Amino acid sequence: MIHKPLSDPRSEALTRKPAGGRSSKALQKGQATRAVILDAALALASHMGLEGLSIGALAESTQMSNSGVFAHFGSREELQISVVREYHAKFEEEVFFPAMRELRGLPRLRMLFERWVKRVSVELDSGCIYISGAVEFDDRPGPVRDALVVMVVAWHAALERAIRQAIEEGHLRQDTEAHQVLFEVHGLILALHHDARFLRIPGALDRARKGFERIVQFYKTNYETNTLLESSPSVTTRGKTKR
Amino acid sequence: MIHKPLSDPRSEALTRKPAGGRSSKALQKGQATRAVILDAALALASHMGLEGLSIGALAESTQMSNSGVFAHFGSREELQISVVREYHAKFEEEVFFPAMRELRGLPRLRMLFERWVKRVSVELDSGCIYISGAVEFDDRPGPVRDALVVMVVAWHAALERAIRQAIEEGHLRQDTEAHQVLFEVHGLILALHHDARFLRIPGALDRARKGFERIVQFYKTNYETNTLLESSPSVTTRGKTKR
Repeated sequence: MIHKPLSDPRSEALTRKPAGGRSSKALQKGQATRAVILDAALALASHMGLEGLSIGALAESTQMSNSGVFAHFGSREELQISVVREYHAKFEEEVFFPAMRELRGLPRLRMLFERWVKRVSVELDSGCIYISGAVEFDDRPGPVRDALVVMVVAWHAALERAIRQAIEEGHLRQDTEAHQVLFEVHGLILALHHDARFLRIPGALDRARKGFERIVQFYKTNYETNTLLESSPSVTTRGKTKR
Repeated sequence: MIHKPLSDPRSEALTRKPAGGRSSKALQKGQATRAVILDAALALASHMGLEGLSIGALAESTQMSNSGVFAHFGSREELQISVVREYHAKFEEEVFFPAMRELRGLPRLRMLFERWVKRVSVELDSGCIYISGAVEFDDRPGPVRDALVVMVVAWHAALERAIRQAIEEGHLRQDTEAHQVLFEVHGLILALHHDARFLRIPGALDRARKGFERIVQFYKTNYETNTLLESSPSVTTRGKTKR
């Protein structure tokens, strides 16, 4: 089953489309250059924030001319929005889609969290653009803020869906408030980013994982034990693969 | 008993000292002006971040000349550091000192959290400088980052002390890891700031409080019940006031 991307249907254009087969050589070369600039912009934004991006800084970083960069991104705002979308596409690839391969319910939720933690840890040399972007733009209404909000909301909706599925599958208690679990899990990630990136103290990764386990234990049912008890040839197991 | 301020002993100069009785009128007027500028700077930084501060922006906001502002803060960096210290002093007044009036242990820890939540909520129109500062400066080594780190570390140390005291008082279990509780509580505050400020979704306050209650319930002993059972004239109660 093909999973829909995280992107909200209102923002279909947001994930990058692969080059068409009949593109001219020039178009392909242009797209390759754009991809190089975008990667450089992503790296720059991870360190300096989205507001630290400028056509000039990027030209310097890619050793291109200002007009060369400008040709691909008409304005600084367009550049920032493209970076947000690119970040989102990478996030989907690394966090969302791999977790979708796990069994529906708690296994998938665990993998979503673990992948998220890994990504934030990898970013500890740079920084998570969602997190820095949220702080940079919480008081700056406009298209860049809107693009960020769409991405964050889509990601949070996917997480919440996974939590609800875990409730439906009977892995988490029926009275579990999905919003509450989402809030607390998100808090762990933010604390991880802060302690590791800003305070540079060790052990934040373990604490994030421990915190997640505590949340899971609080809401968990005995589904694992039940599955073992029920798994005899004549009884349908609860753990059947549902996508 | 007078409680030591949050400030780390290495940073004694950081909390604002009251004007001395023998200051000349000019000095008093200078201090008053400095206070006005500092308040304006605090407000500006809450919206624009510390990096959004400039002598020029402040001059405009206070309707003073650039040189007038510059006379009080020799450089932008000095201005930023003064704002960090001022923020810290206000934080101590509003969050730390009131909580110290509570009984040592869980009552005090609850009040620290509640005051912290209230402050972040009040800041929802503006923003918490610790939180935005951490993101702005995590990749910008220098005196401003150092000043922020000192403040944040002092505040976290105070929280951790309160957690340890709750363990010592027998309100929280002996096997409670204070660092872990601190990490999770901090995460709730960061999630609150994010959801309320960036996503502008309602209900974040309740979720933060619920999350805190869940953490407390996880680690709590039956000290309240025990205190009731033990409170007979011939037995010393566990709940005696210790500061």
